[in-house]
Amino acid sequence: MEKEIITKQTEPYLKIIPLGGLGEVGRNMMLLEYKDSILVIDMGFRMPEDGMPGIDYIIPNIAYLTKNKKYKNIVGVLFTHGHYDHIGAVPYAMARLGNPPMYASPLTKGIILKRQEEVPMQPKLKIIEVKDGSKIELGPFKVEFFRQTHTIPDNLGMFIETPVGNIVHTSDFKFDKHPVNEKPTDFNKLNEIGKRGITLLMSDSTGAEQEGHSLSERDINKNLEEIFKKTKGRLIVATFSSLINRLQQIITLSEKYGRKVAVVGHSMKTNTWLTKELGLLKVKKGTILKKVSDVNNYKDEEVTIMCTGAQGEESAGLMKIVLKEHPSVSIKPGDTMIFSSSVIPGNERAVQYLKDDLLRQKAIIYHYGMMDIHAGGHAKQEELLEMMHIMKPEFFMPVHGQYSMLVANARLAEEEANIPKENIIIMDNGNILNLQKHKAYIDKKEVPANYVMVDGLGIGDVGEVVLRDRQALAEDGIFVIIAIVNRKTGKVQTSPDIISRGFVYLKESQELLSETRRIVVGSIEEATGSGKIVNWTYMKDKVRDDIGEFLFRKTERRPMVLPVIIEV
Amino acid sequence: MEKEIITKQTEPYLKIIPLGGLGEVGRNMMLLEYKDSILVIDMGFRMPEDGMPGIDYIIPNIAYLTKNKKYKNIVGVLFTHGHYDHIGAVPYAMARLGNPPMYASPLTKGIILKRQEEVPMQPKLKIIEVKDGSKIELGPFKVEFFRQTHTIPDNLGMFIETPVGNIVHTSDFKFDKHPVNEKPTDFNKLNEIGKRGITLLMSDSTGAEQEGHSLSERDINKNLEEIFKKTKGRLIVATFSSLINRLQQIITLSEKYGRKVAVVGHSMKTNTWLTKELGLLKVKKGTILKKVSDVNNYKDEEVTIMCTGAQGEESAGLMKIVLKEHPSVSIKPGDTMIFSSSVIPGNERAVQYLKDDLLRQKAIIYHYGMMDIHAGGHAKQEELLEMMHIMKPEFFMPVHGQYSMLVANARLAEEEANIPKENIIIMDNGNILNLQKHKAYIDKKEVPANYVMVDGLGIGDVGEVVLRDRQALAEDGIFVIIAIVNRKTGKVQTSPDIISRGFVYLKESQELLSETRRIVVGSIEEATGSGKIVNWTYMKDKVRDDIGEFLFRKTERRPMVLPVIIEV
Repeated sequence: MEKEIITKQTEPYLKIIPLGGLGEVGRNMMLLEYKDSILVIDMGFRMPEDGMPGIDYIIPNIAYLTKNKKYKNIVGVLFTHGHYDHIGAVPYAMARLGNPPMYASPLTKGIILKRQEEVPMQPKLKIIEVKDGSKIELGPFKVEFFRQTHTIPDNLGMFIETPVGNIVHTSDFKFDKHPVNEKPTDFNKLNEIGKRGITLLMSDSTGAEQEGHSLSERDINKNLEEIFKKTKGRLIVATFSSLINRLQQIITLSEKYGRKVAVVGHSMKTNTWLTKELGLLKVKKGTILKKVSDVNNYKDEEVTIMCTGAQGEESAGLMKIVLKEHPSVSIKPGDTMIFSSSVIPGNERAVQYLKDDLLRQKAIIYHYGMMDIHAGGHAKQEELLEMMHIMKPEFFMPVHGQYSMLVANARLAEEEANIPKENIIIMDNGNILNLQKHKAYIDKKEVPANYVMVDGLGIGDVGEVVLRDRQALAEDGIFVIIAIVNRKTGKVQTSPDIISRGFVYLKESQELLSETRRIVVGSIEEATGSGKIVNWTYMKDKVRDDIGEFLFRKTERRPMVLPVIIEV
Repeated sequence: MEKEIITKQTEPYLKIIPLGGLGEVGRNMMLLEYKDSILVIDMGFRMPEDGMPGIDYIIPNIAYLTKNKKYKNIVGVLFTHGHYDHIGAVPYAMARLGNPPMYASPLTKGIILKRQEEVPMQPKLKIIEVKDGSKIELGPFKVEFFRQTHTIPDNLGMFIETPVGNIVHTSDFKFDKHPVNEKPTDFNKLNEIGKRGITLLMSDSTGAEQEGHSLSERDINKNLEEIFKKTKGRLIVATFSSLINRLQQIITLSEKYGRKVAVVGHSMKTNTWLTKELGLLKVKKGTILKKVSDVNNYKDEEVTIMCTGAQGEESAGLMKIVLKEHPSVSIKPGDTMIFSSSVIPGNERAVQYLKDDLLRQKAIIYHYGMMDIHAGGHAKQEELLEMMHIMKPEFFMPVHGQYSMLVANARLAEEEANIPKENIIIMDNGNILNLQKHKAYIDKKEVPANYVMVDGLGIGDVGEVVLRDRQALAEDGIFVIIAIVNRKTGKVQTSPDIISRGFVYLKESQELLSETRRIVVGSIEEATGSGKIVNWTYMKDKVRDDIGEFLFRKTERRPMVLPVIIEV
């Protein structure tokens, strides 16, 4: 009898739960849960969208882990690489998860620790260093790390043995036979892993809508060198500070062509320093100038300025230079500007105006729309397909990317790699995949996976209501009316005060204001007059509605109206 | 003696003054001023940029014309075509310019009048219809209109004879030998005009950064037809409602493939109706469904839904359909969605999320990144060069476009068309070009050409201060403190009231609020205590600073703090 029960009992599933990074770019976090053990992969943030004023970052919702202290089951947090969309949520989540052990490559560890310093009141993290070939055992999971080519060194994919089968997580990757600053893709290793038998492949989808093969960094380097070779004046190169391998190219080319390098921008300085310390950036002594103002001690053709701000960010180094707000550098005619970066969706307008300003100041501009001086770090269709051919997975799950990218990756798997449609799993954040041997289905239940917003020191305390208020305030401003009412007579004492911001320029709207005051007095005294019992809530609502309607009629704007009525 | 004075007196210059449209896309308005006569070309608006919450449109500054009633010199306002970036400022400017006579093609006139109905309190406009070949004389200017291919019918370029020479204004244009819904480019006419001797060519620069030749609408049509041919389910086509010629294609293809057309979206309906009325849109009887809900009376393969919202606009037809907010249409699996439009910079994110939602609802998507189902309306480099070759101008002025586009067009003129560098004039809005026979220079003086913002009924009353306040309110909200102080005792009566919006969720921040109240009372009573003479302004400032600093320390947010201190 007892035996029968046991056989009837279903074998446990491995649950795979993305808390972020699916249906979006950034905020990557994935859980693997088997019985009482949870493995976490990455813990990233993303930048806020339009309509989220004041928000600093969006991080994954970890309620599934904090509820009933489930985080006690975490056996380890693994990190693929040091980009903020994979590590950025650490300072906001790790303490609330009981500070479990973390596994990261040296550079990833360095970046996590550096970032940790910038956020107050952090616990001391327990980070165990891993590298290509490292094997660790965490509860029921056996993890082997293998290196993957990307735009930052020390990027690791993961082979994970679980009780229900082998899983490969690609990390962000591209295949590059001729990279700069790291070893070429290790196809031997990948093939060897593929032969172990892969139950599930979780593969980066960011480039899945793009045909062909990503450019090799060797080609980018060749084109950059063309510009270095022919440029007579100063070179200003803007790129992402997280593109460590691009920074290496700029530095090496500068050395080759007799240029000193000034580093402009906080994150550019930090990353240059950190990777140099770790031996991951090769820089000759004296190449990097101590102070940016030192550029003025060299001839124009001996200077490279390497800066942040290729996205037109207001506070970045390049913007300060262009707006003549930088203490020691400004644009001069004949400067050559290289944008070695793509434009992140949403930044197109800012970048356009930045370029326009540079042209007005007579700079020469090169950008990736003109020649191949930038490549992203993500596999395109040919590489994604090659990864599928190498791993020959039973099940395929596209990860990392907007929903359209997941769909594109899934289509590749179905149409090109001939993975059966029913074995291709497109998930949204919060979905639960139940995986068993030769069996996988998405649970009807979901876990919370909504945006958690970070604003200053607040994590998750800005919700829909606060955001809606901010949007409303932004649209038409605020209009505060302060009226003092004599309790005995019901009369409004003196003229009501009006404070308004973001609505109209008050000094030019005196007539509007005096009319408003008359209406306020009228509305209040109608409610208090002739010995009525005063319903203060009703009266406030009436004043709000009357004034709102009046202002809309006069201006077709709807400021937030806040009546303050004080009895004395 | 008198004669000598006359010869010494400099001959009058023709002044050319762009009030908008140079260094930006949209808001086109150009003045030609000769002695006491001013000719105006176009009067457009543009959409607000990021950081301009609540703003509806940006229009040109017409202060140069309103000062000293200079607008009395306007001899006429000419319109090239009916797109809002060329006519949109009419309801906000025409009355203030004394309602001078306007010259427009039938469709342009129709659109101007339709738009006029949507803005209250407009004067009756005096619009004289012109068409291809029309010649008019306005003061010292003789204008001949000639048709130009674009994305809307009835688009007119202008040949303008002036006392200092002949000017050609291209309007927005592309060369298309096989357009849809209009005649092919009239090269004979253009060549004939070129032979008259052109002193100045003002040429559309919007496409100047793009190599090659714009696609012919015939090719677009071919690709659209491919989709129509193979689609079994419903077709939903989103495009700009102003792309009249694209609407024609969708309607004609629907008729050919046995589909009825439902028109969704206010501007789509208006433009369809208007162009049909003018005979500029050919539609068979019964093709267009009377009500959108009629689609449910037809089989899926008999339905085309033509809608606005290809930019992911929140209030547009497509968004309502996708969010299931449309009363009669929602997405069903197997619907085929065509985005026959490019993505306007700044809208990339919205469009991405729209596509993602469509894919989640199992729609099939075609967009211009996948195949050529959209072409813009602007000449690319080959066509721009051809225009220069045809007109062989002495002087060349790139118009319409971001500064980088003007520069690209200028570079073509210099490097490819061999126009001498000193005869190529890159201007910014507000610059004055002085043009004489064989002589042109940009004046040191400028006229006002800053953004004038339209917000509701207000034109230009939202300035930097109001915008800055709106941005600040959006970032961290507002925090109003109301304290009542007893004049005699200097004590704060009862606990101060706090009203806050967009800062924190108040219900969850009770502790923060009570601490704030304590600080307010402390700051006030420190100032009023021990018989001091109270400086109320100083006290208010102190409360504002103390509270601001306290809130920042606690939250790292900076809401706008407004103290209201009332003596009783």
